[in-house]
Amino acid sequence: MKIFTSSEYFDEQLYLESGRIIEGYTQAYETYGELNRDKSNAIVVFHALTGSHHAAGKYEGDSKAGWWDPLIGDNKILDTTKYFVICVNILGSCFGSSCPTTPTKKGMPPLRLKFPVITISDMVRAQMSLFKRLGIEKAYAVIGGSLGGMQALCVGVEYPEFTDKIIMLASTYATSPWAISFNKLAMEGIVKDPRFKDGNYKKEDFEELPLSGFAIGRMAGHISFLSPYSMNQKFGRNYVETDGLYELFGRFQVERYMEYNGYNFAKRFDPLSYIYIIKAMNIFDASRNYDSLSDSLKNIKAKMTLVAFRGDMLFMPNEMVAIRDTLRDMGRGNSVDYHCVDSNYGHDAFLIEYDKFDFYIRKALEK
Amino acid sequence: MKIFTSSEYFDEQLYLESGRIIEGYTQAYETYGELNRDKSNAIVVFHALTGSHHAAGKYEGDSKAGWWDPLIGDNKILDTTKYFVICVNILGSCFGSSCPTTPTKKGMPPLRLKFPVITISDMVRAQMSLFKRLGIEKAYAVIGGSLGGMQALCVGVEYPEFTDKIIMLASTYATSPWAISFNKLAMEGIVKDPRFKDGNYKKEDFEELPLSGFAIGRMAGHISFLSPYSMNQKFGRNYVETDGLYELFGRFQVERYMEYNGYNFAKRFDPLSYIYIIKAMNIFDASRNYDSLSDSLKNIKAKMTLVAFRGDMLFMPNEMVAIRDTLRDMGRGNSVDYHCVDSNYGHDAFLIEYDKFDFYIRKALEK
Repeated sequence: MKIFTSSEYFDEQLYLESGRIIEGYTQAYETYGELNRDKSNAIVVFHALTGSHHAAGKYEGDSKAGWWDPLIGDNKILDTTKYFVICVNILGSCFGSSCPTTPTKKGMPPLRLKFPVITISDMVRAQMSLFKRLGIEKAYAVIGGSLGGMQALCVGVEYPEFTDKIIMLASTYATSPWAISFNKLAMEGIVKDPRFKDGNYKKEDFEELPLSGFAIGRMAGHISFLSPYSMNQKFGRNYVETDGLYELFGRFQVERYMEYNGYNFAKRFDPLSYIYIIKAMNIFDASRNYDSLSDSLKNIKAKMTLVAFRGDMLFMPNEMVAIRDTLRDMGRGNSVDYHCVDSNYGHDAFLIEYDKFDFYIRKALEK
Repeated sequence: MKIFTSSEYFDEQLYLESGRIIEGYTQAYETYGELNRDKSNAIVVFHALTGSHHAAGKYEGDSKAGWWDPLIGDNKILDTTKYFVICVNILGSCFGSSCPTTPTKKGMPPLRLKFPVITISDMVRAQMSLFKRLGIEKAYAVIGGSLGGMQALCVGVEYPEFTDKIIMLASTYATSPWAISFNKLAMEGIVKDPRFKDGNYKKEDFEELPLSGFAIGRMAGHISFLSPYSMNQKFGRNYVETDGLYELFGRFQVERYMEYNGYNFAKRFDPLSYIYIIKAMNIFDASRNYDSLSDSLKNIKAKMTLVAFRGDMLFMPNEMVAIRDTLRDMGRGNSVDYHCVDSNYGHDAFLIEYDKFDFYIRKALEK
């Protein structure tokens, strides 16, 4: 599989949904496989909240492969002998695209908390400029899980000619108050931590000693990524061997898991990027600017494949059902396939239990 | 209804489950109605995590009545013309009973983070000393929701002769990793907040400016007290009128609710008490010190009434079902009544939707 990593600078204004403007912006991206002569074999993969454009393969010296490596590669489901797969680091994220900690134009300091709020729609609009520059006028398919699924849905509504196949996993048409409330813990945790310094921290400050409020906010995320059932399976009430049951700070294994993941994450991800991306997630609503969800979804021309996970505690299956039912009620039942996967992993399943859903992706791509 | 508020000091050692000892301790309590001549009409009400012994009635100048006021009073379900209702502030709580911020003996400074870890069993043991001092050798019934339900179950297992009727609401036989993970956010939030000062804060410090980490931890609690469904009903995706959708710190109504409740709570509750009580909740397991749950529950002689709430995201109905089924499998099906209440309020329902479950309490008391 041929992997190509790069970034492109756009010396143009990006008009945001908010009415604000970004003056020039960069997008990092990665591609797998080769674009065919008529540029008709591109599959766009959208990453989730904390993902990056590094979706597959390994960089030199890395022990871990990209976040969807089991699905992307030669003879895999997203078969790079046939398809040209591209994944773009979303605007606002800290892996190479323009974000609160990068200068917008040469010589201008990072905007930090003055960075404008961006929406899913803004992220997608920026990516469309990149696809255009690469000569991709139409994608064979677009696919994404979680926040990536929101981008996929957004393409369907706002760029109905861009693709004939949309695959959404573990996602929603509008973020629920339940999901917003988990994000609230991260927002508060980060902003109220004195070491955040109103966004004027130095990144190095957190490499040794992560921002606690960020770690705690991320731990909240981990609760929503798992489920009561998956926690019972994974941890039960097992106690950390070296800790005492009657020590105040003695820990259950689930607590150690949260600590480990929360603090490690807070070392490597940028807190400003995090709050801007959860803000974009919170305000995502496919029906905003439309009279109703059906008024919005009627724009879609692509065949939709929706994959929900039964134990998903962040974006619950009934939210995907609402998309299917709305399309059905418009007489568009034939253009939507809904599958609810029985999984023990909750929301995280779309990054773990490939063998339980890859078939649906294969089927969607074959048609 | 006659209300009596008092506290008792116990000049004796309390041997804790951990092996540690508390040297002398105080318990605040409140009673409603009058103890009859043969002291056979006492109903013990156990309060939850942040409740107090002030379960009913109003203190002079108060606008709000005690936390279970709709159930306790003359001609109410816990009818104070018939019953003598008593509620004791649990050990570790900050409303008058011994806790990390109170001196254990005259002249000794508060133990703060050196206070011993206490368990549900310890809380109940201390209360038994109080009941004994008041001459109550046997209660007509014991009842509690959430952490109060754990105490009720503990009575059944450890003091099987103390009562013939146990009523547990919205509770469990052992705290699940899911519930522990929510508590973890509070534990980390409090302890990592620099203003917590390793437990050496002054209470006054938080009256104006609450401890953020505590407020955030409490917000996490509020997520688990509600449910995805109740949040949709209560808030939907409504935005705070004065906030801008594209302002980074603009808020959805669910976020304002969390802020309001989180920060207000952090002004009035003590963070050390909070971490000690959630620790007690986390390590509660009715089967510890027994071979199995059935080995533990076989001690129970009382009739059990279990009331679960369908949308309860903290202690889920299946956890109460496990208690019923365990008793059934022992051939004790006749001694347990299980009811699952359809409620829109999640865990909080036991403090709100009285008309949906008070009948079960009435029935349990009549038998």
